[in-house]
Amino acid sequence: MKNVDMIVKAPHFYTMEGDGVGYRTEVAMVVDGGKIIEIAETGRILANYKGAEELDMDHHAIFPGFIDAHMHTACNIMRGLAQDTNHWMMYGLQPFDNAISDEERDVGSYVAIIEAIKAGTTTLGDYESKMDNVCHFIEKVGARGNITQTIRAAKRRVYQPGELYEFDDELGTESLTRNLALYDRWHNKAGGRIKILFGPQGADFVSPEMLLKIQKIVKERKTKIHMHTQQGDRETYQIVNRYGKRPVAFLESLGYLDESLMAVHLTDCSDEEAAVVAKSGASMILCPGSIAIIDGIVPPSVAFQEAGGNVALGSDQAPGNNCHNIINEMKNVALFNKIKYGNPEVMPAWRALRMATIEGARAVGLGDRVGSLEVGKQADFIAIDLSCPSMLPIFTYPMRNMVPNLVYSARGQEVSLVAVDGMVIMRDGKILTIEEEDYLKTVSRYPAGIGQRAAKEFFEINGTNAQFMAEGKL
Amino acid sequence: MKNVDMIVKAPHFYTMEGDGVGYRTEVAMVVDGGKIIEIAETGRILANYKGAEELDMDHHAIFPGFIDAHMHTACNIMRGLAQDTNHWMMYGLQPFDNAISDEERDVGSYVAIIEAIKAGTTTLGDYESKMDNVCHFIEKVGARGNITQTIRAAKRRVYQPGELYEFDDELGTESLTRNLALYDRWHNKAGGRIKILFGPQGADFVSPEMLLKIQKIVKERKTKIHMHTQQGDRETYQIVNRYGKRPVAFLESLGYLDESLMAVHLTDCSDEEAAVVAKSGASMILCPGSIAIIDGIVPPSVAFQEAGGNVALGSDQAPGNNCHNIINEMKNVALFNKIKYGNPEVMPAWRALRMATIEGARAVGLGDRVGSLEVGKQADFIAIDLSCPSMLPIFTYPMRNMVPNLVYSARGQEVSLVAVDGMVIMRDGKILTIEEEDYLKTVSRYPAGIGQRAAKEFFEINGTNAQFMAEGKL
Repeated sequence: MKNVDMIVKAPHFYTMEGDGVGYRTEVAMVVDGGKIIEIAETGRILANYKGAEELDMDHHAIFPGFIDAHMHTACNIMRGLAQDTNHWMMYGLQPFDNAISDEERDVGSYVAIIEAIKAGTTTLGDYESKMDNVCHFIEKVGARGNITQTIRAAKRRVYQPGELYEFDDELGTESLTRNLALYDRWHNKAGGRIKILFGPQGADFVSPEMLLKIQKIVKERKTKIHMHTQQGDRETYQIVNRYGKRPVAFLESLGYLDESLMAVHLTDCSDEEAAVVAKSGASMILCPGSIAIIDGIVPPSVAFQEAGGNVALGSDQAPGNNCHNIINEMKNVALFNKIKYGNPEVMPAWRALRMATIEGARAVGLGDRVGSLEVGKQADFIAIDLSCPSMLPIFTYPMRNMVPNLVYSARGQEVSLVAVDGMVIMRDGKILTIEEEDYLKTVSRYPAGIGQRAAKEFFEINGTNAQFMAEGKL
Repeated sequence: MKNVDMIVKAPHFYTMEGDGVGYRTEVAMVVDGGKIIEIAETGRILANYKGAEELDMDHHAIFPGFIDAHMHTACNIMRGLAQDTNHWMMYGLQPFDNAISDEERDVGSYVAIIEAIKAGTTTLGDYESKMDNVCHFIEKVGARGNITQTIRAAKRRVYQPGELYEFDDELGTESLTRNLALYDRWHNKAGGRIKILFGPQGADFVSPEMLLKIQKIVKERKTKIHMHTQQGDRETYQIVNRYGKRPVAFLESLGYLDESLMAVHLTDCSDEEAAVVAKSGASMILCPGSIAIIDGIVPPSVAFQEAGGNVALGSDQAPGNNCHNIINEMKNVALFNKIKYGNPEVMPAWRALRMATIEGARAVGLGDRVGSLEVGKQADFIAIDLSCPSMLPIFTYPMRNMVPNLVYSARGQEVSLVAVDGMVIMRDGKILTIEEEDYLKTVSRYPAGIGQRAAKEFFEINGTNAQFMAEGKL
């Protein structure tokens, strides 16, 4: 009998090994030192191991924890304040974004992270200008963080229509220096759960020289570039007018398309442009709900996959999605693509699940550590309660319906346990590592002040939502 | 002080009065004899009334209960067994549908109804061949039922491609007689909570003579026809080849388009055809998730509304949606139409909410009884817990974000209370009127037997899901 940290027993394991979902039954999983050390027939496991903790997950299925590859959790302080409008950033977000403080961004982040974990996310791909406090929170709560800090040289001021952004090298250098400092403080910290990536906001926001400088830094440090790429007609306009090429072609000519790039959105890409990115070895991050709400567009993730690329899912931000729930994004990517192609066979449930787990892990540079339940990987896993009405009834023969029910019917509350590095951080709807209620209560102190500061600009802009307020529609 | 059954206190009421969301604050709602008798300033209410029950819904918003206008809850016994395939009915549903008994359909229904109520549905628009047991269950659980029984004359046998269905008048008459008997037994029963509608399965499944006979019965009884209408190319083929017209044109020529018709799906309708139906006074029932999964199509509900028609939302059935959750359908209708039109301003959150409440109630013939919180209406309402992470933070100025957060971010577990006719039937995630666990456990006894009976046909057909099973993808 070998003493180990944990034995996980459950009737169903979806390991995501191979090219499907890696279903296994009548097995148990052994966790020690934060890693999966064996998955084998239950009787043999119980004969050979004694677990300090034994999780008996009757009527549950075990899955790898979900990867949310692209989040701006700091924006959660503005949840629900910017959707249902054209020119989302200017007419929706801007009055509030101009009004909020760093402290308010942080308390918004904490709630978003709690929301995401409770819906089964174990790896948080968070991205914002100042990430130290989020790193501290992720360390404390026990999740995994793939953290990026914004690098930007374009001056923040009002630009005339058609005007090219003005680059300020000092701004760019300063933000790059801060990203480097974050890297030095946090990369591989929190027991290795935190990785630091580099975040040029987009090819339109920094000079080519700085893009290349960042690439060199990233390659030396064996980390990744996490960059919004061909994310809309505004970016395309800037790049075409500056360099005479569309963004993907510009990045290709710069030598920027390779495995160190995580290309976020590709909203304004043709299938052919997506294929160029995919074939380079770069990965794609797709935020289906956010891009549907903000732009009414279904980006070319299917073309990207057909060209051999890996695609991860992201929840993006809460004033234009409006949630951080990867189960929701799995549903979205499957349904939106069935609609886009007019074909119910496009993007079946199991493919969406792979994007949320193993394919997502590969896309964000963590494919050797998480995303599947395999010996040697970190023990990031979740348990789905199969006795919830939304999952019932459960069939195993002649067809298993757990994956379709998870993707199309589940909502998040079916996640009854979340573990990262073998530590249970959420159980039965409660985060175990922090006083969750304190964070949920704290955030409610801020809307009154933000509202006061944002009101003048909100009413002056008089966007869709201001009109809805005037008409009694909100 | 007047003694009344109930006083409901909460910081926010969305009454759905007027043409927006009818937001009111600093008010309380008085319920007596199952009806709303006053909504007014809280201090005045407390000075004038004493409630036998006082609901103090701190940190909650009160909404009318949701209308799910079209459900086949009996199919829930097959949840998750039929999606991700072309020819859904033949390749997906058929092997299982042929294998299940009436008893199995009933236990499936009970779980679907529990699921729906817990996500805020108070009016269940259920539709199947045998509805007595569902009526008993709805009576017991305390929900509202808008119940339809299938009328069909087309023989159930294998048809050759291109062959027209063979009508059997005896079959048709028998099913109509049973619908009439159901009407006599249940219409206006369960304290008036159950209404019986009439359900010709589609214009392709019964003769014109029987369609007209049903219409006459419906008009005499002041109830409604609940019929799948131009629901796909299969129906269109049958009607064109039988009558030389597409279904909407055929129904128009028959005098079938008027306010007694609830037209379900309109999947194969052009915008112009949808407008013809809308202008007739008929209503539309839209099942966005189901039709996206089964057909990859977004039906013309926006055109229907623009032509002045009322559209209700439906969750349809669980082997091809795969859930009964109107919050999910609100999200779907908003996002799918933004994508369809490439325009984020199409179908804002408040319009989706109106479809799930007052517009839906009007569409199903209950506009004078439910769908809004107004004096004289039945007290069907739900409470949304605003302290859930998915709803936080809450803004009231300069913009209220509760409706966008409900539609785009909530999942169902935010519904912490459901009342019908002033009786609380669900609180804090538990149905109060039945032993919910018994029903959830009972349904789990059936999949093994169904699977055994369905397996031969499932493997013979060898559809998408059989192939996925063979490939380890489920």
